[in-house]
Amino acid sequence: MQYTYLDTDRPLLISSVLSHAEQQYGDVQIVSRETHGPLFRYTYAEAAHRARRLARALARLGLVDGDVVGSIAWNNHRHLESYFAVSGSGMVMHTCNPRLQIEQLAYIINHADDRVVLFDSSFAGKVALLAERCPGVEVWIALCERTCMPNLPGVERLLCYETLLEAEPDDFVWPELDERKAAALCYTSGTTGNPKGVLYSHRKIILNSLVLSLPGSMSLSAQDCVLPAVPMFHINAWCIPYAAPINGSKLVLPGPNLDGASLYALIEAEAVTVSAGVPTIWHGLAQYLEAGSKRFSTFRRAVVGGAAMAPSLIATYEADFNVEVRCGWGMTETTAVATMSGLLPKHEDLADAEQHVLRSRPGRALFGAEVKIVDEAGQTLPRDGAAVGELCVRGLWVLSEYFKGESSPLRDGWFPTGDVAKIDPDGVVQITDRVKDVIKSGGEWISSIDLEHAAMAHPAVALATVIGVKHPKWDERPLMFVERNPAQSVERDELLAFLSTRVARWWLPDDIVFLDALPLGGTGKVDKISLRRRYAGAFV
Amino acid sequence: MQYTYLDTDRPLLISSVLSHAEQQYGDVQIVSRETHGPLFRYTYAEAAHRARRLARALARLGLVDGDVVGSIAWNNHRHLESYFAVSGSGMVMHTCNPRLQIEQLAYIINHADDRVVLFDSSFAGKVALLAERCPGVEVWIALCERTCMPNLPGVERLLCYETLLEAEPDDFVWPELDERKAAALCYTSGTTGNPKGVLYSHRKIILNSLVLSLPGSMSLSAQDCVLPAVPMFHINAWCIPYAAPINGSKLVLPGPNLDGASLYALIEAEAVTVSAGVPTIWHGLAQYLEAGSKRFSTFRRAVVGGAAMAPSLIATYEADFNVEVRCGWGMTETTAVATMSGLLPKHEDLADAEQHVLRSRPGRALFGAEVKIVDEAGQTLPRDGAAVGELCVRGLWVLSEYFKGESSPLRDGWFPTGDVAKIDPDGVVQITDRVKDVIKSGGEWISSIDLEHAAMAHPAVALATVIGVKHPKWDERPLMFVERNPAQSVERDELLAFLSTRVARWWLPDDIVFLDALPLGGTGKVDKISLRRRYAGAFV
Repeated sequence: MQYTYLDTDRPLLISSVLSHAEQQYGDVQIVSRETHGPLFRYTYAEAAHRARRLARALARLGLVDGDVVGSIAWNNHRHLESYFAVSGSGMVMHTCNPRLQIEQLAYIINHADDRVVLFDSSFAGKVALLAERCPGVEVWIALCERTCMPNLPGVERLLCYETLLEAEPDDFVWPELDERKAAALCYTSGTTGNPKGVLYSHRKIILNSLVLSLPGSMSLSAQDCVLPAVPMFHINAWCIPYAAPINGSKLVLPGPNLDGASLYALIEAEAVTVSAGVPTIWHGLAQYLEAGSKRFSTFRRAVVGGAAMAPSLIATYEADFNVEVRCGWGMTETTAVATMSGLLPKHEDLADAEQHVLRSRPGRALFGAEVKIVDEAGQTLPRDGAAVGELCVRGLWVLSEYFKGESSPLRDGWFPTGDVAKIDPDGVVQITDRVKDVIKSGGEWISSIDLEHAAMAHPAVALATVIGVKHPKWDERPLMFVERNPAQSVERDELLAFLSTRVARWWLPDDIVFLDALPLGGTGKVDKISLRRRYAGAFV
Repeated sequence: MQYTYLDTDRPLLISSVLSHAEQQYGDVQIVSRETHGPLFRYTYAEAAHRARRLARALARLGLVDGDVVGSIAWNNHRHLESYFAVSGSGMVMHTCNPRLQIEQLAYIINHADDRVVLFDSSFAGKVALLAERCPGVEVWIALCERTCMPNLPGVERLLCYETLLEAEPDDFVWPELDERKAAALCYTSGTTGNPKGVLYSHRKIILNSLVLSLPGSMSLSAQDCVLPAVPMFHINAWCIPYAAPINGSKLVLPGPNLDGASLYALIEAEAVTVSAGVPTIWHGLAQYLEAGSKRFSTFRRAVVGGAAMAPSLIATYEADFNVEVRCGWGMTETTAVATMSGLLPKHEDLADAEQHVLRSRPGRALFGAEVKIVDEAGQTLPRDGAAVGELCVRGLWVLSEYFKGESSPLRDGWFPTGDVAKIDPDGVVQITDRVKDVIKSGGEWISSIDLEHAAMAHPAVALATVIGVKHPKWDERPLMFVERNPAQSVERDELLAFLSTRVARWWLPDDIVFLDALPLGGTGKVDKISLRRRYAGAFV
């Protein structure tokens, strides 16, 4: 039938996000912490003007549709403008994680064929090292005003962002693109081997942003003020830079300082209502509030991802700070968030402690994502809350292949995540481990995450992490590392006794090592790899 | 560059909506008022089972991908199952408005080539008349159990819905379709000429459902219980039957009775939190509450569309009932809602009366829709809150052509809506009239909607409508019709004096006619056409 297919739909495009905000929420504020300290404040209408001028400037530099533009930058307004100017004009925004080693940074810039790299002046030292390693980069653009330009004598074509913008009119017209065109590129942190690139199309980003904004997900509206404490250099800050303008939410970009004091001051000053970050961010913020007996005035929703959040920390936020905690799950390969925790009406009568445990799980698949667990033969396991297998995901915003990848990472159309999980009959996912972190002891599995959460329930424990260490008899045995809360004390035997009331006897770690600070990796998670290397021989 | 296009995305499909609800919200309830009276209660998991069995039954009847299935039915669970079974298996769900005249109903069933028509037994009388007029319909299926089957001796192939389902297993696997395939079909009410059909693709319906669910729009989550008081036979009940399972909201389908007493009882018994309906629904419900001094326990958001809601009625809901009113705008051609009212943080300090006026306007374009106003030459007019022109819309879910239409209704890619509107600098649309309802008096325009709202601000006025009537001197002059509130009185001169304090002197209607009840058309709006016909000679 000739009318069965409707082919003239308008596309899902990133440029329409900023145009929408300009037209409906033109005077809603964007507040940005500049890399050198002061707060910058403007509106969606002004951001749209400047993004158009940047698009013109990039075109004048000779960049064309399909080119890749890199960035090494914090969460600030120039980085935001770049997101829209680069993707909106048909190019690919390649956000680089500045916490990568120089050789890894050079690898991804070269692998992606970045023609231009935008950088915050605080990364000038890295740029000095990268310039000679990345001969394909034609222009390095410092994201600052002329007066703040870094001194980089070895970098040949160095330009100033504000000088470029000043020269341009704002009459750029966003092209109508294919929504399946690549808009952004992010590399995995590359803990094993070279980082792998994941392309995000306009379509994937818009669909993820819409679903992220739903009431049961992050819940964003024009009544909200959102502060992404997740970096714009990693998985597009979970699409918050797109979701905020879609919904007219005020946007607060915190710059480089994510310590408790800086975050608290910004949250209070700008009346932030909702934020997203990894557990270590929430941990630091909680310590700051507790130390100063401070409370929030407007902040009411904390979204957590990147790692599991201990139920004890959730309890602190909910009971002491009156902040709802929602845990999400996602990865570079899933354009950010794919599942989100949240109570159903039937859970209202559960005891607080049970609610906190339920909230700490990454929750149910959001519409647009599907999850399943499989055994080692790839067979789907039941959703009974007991079976444990590798978590697989597919959906509207899951990758199909890595950038320049040679073989598809999918198995029967599903992406195997490397996470080990259970799924309960309500569809609630509970991550028990990474496949590579699982501790195999005497033929059985010990969940490192469960052990860590058990330890963090002790009031003196700030952070705990567990690794499997080679053992002559049991194959592997757990070794625990603990960072104590300031001015509190707990010793090995007391903590083991505490744990023995919470986990099976054979799960108890063979030893506990107390460290001043646990080592953190490029995305703010505990770096288990360096611990494994250092303590490989602990039990032999 | 080979990686620029990502072509292996998963599609946006209606079948995935019900599968999602089955997996994440399997035990969330659907409550349905059966056409013969009792409440039926089951879950999303059970609805998914039955939809699969219906898909099998339709296939067994010989229906194939691309076929059209009609329905003449209220909002109930069998109609809901049909939505998913028909669209999910690649066929087109054609919802027919039972308020159309028999000849119009026959016209649309024949025009759409319906091979099967599903109908509620309360429409058996219509089916008796339609069967001979619609020879292309091979099977008429009564949406009921065997014991409730209507007696229709003249209808040859009459089947029972429940009997069909009983015979089928539930192992149907939803096909992977192109998301741009037509999933549903709805005809305009055809107030002028024959009704025109609008096809909705899977993509359009899913995108509209997602945006409808956003916090700034209808706001739906697993914490909500939603009652669509808008009919499933018209524009898919504004996509609520899809949006509720996407978000895990409990769904209450009210059947045929939408009077104040029935709605109030259902809202209280099922703990409804949010609903959507035309202004006459809200008017009736408010009268019922006020007459009995009743209040709501859980109901907190009323979404309004289909016609403008008077600020005075908004004030009643907000001040007396503690219910937030959000006014939307959309039409058959826009797959339901395209704009939604809502206050911004900067409006918090406005006086209540000003807030109610702002809320009564259909608000800002939702992400995915764009609006503009144009003059008679098609030139875009400024968004200054003063210029008045025809509202045009385009976006992700706006039609591009009518079903079997011969020429495109679009002008430069925009759909001219036939509504007359202003747009303010915040993007807030204010509909002042329909193009055909505008009253042209002495070369100037009088807004019938503004006049109606001014009259409804009088406590004795329940409903008011205004038409332009031919006038020998002024071309047209306004004639007002009023339905009084029960047990209240107001007369012509008093109301004219009241109006003279609210509108320009030359806008005052030349006469006011008091009626026991204003005539309503097929979608619950006041039927101005019949009034115009009856009163055409009033001023000559």
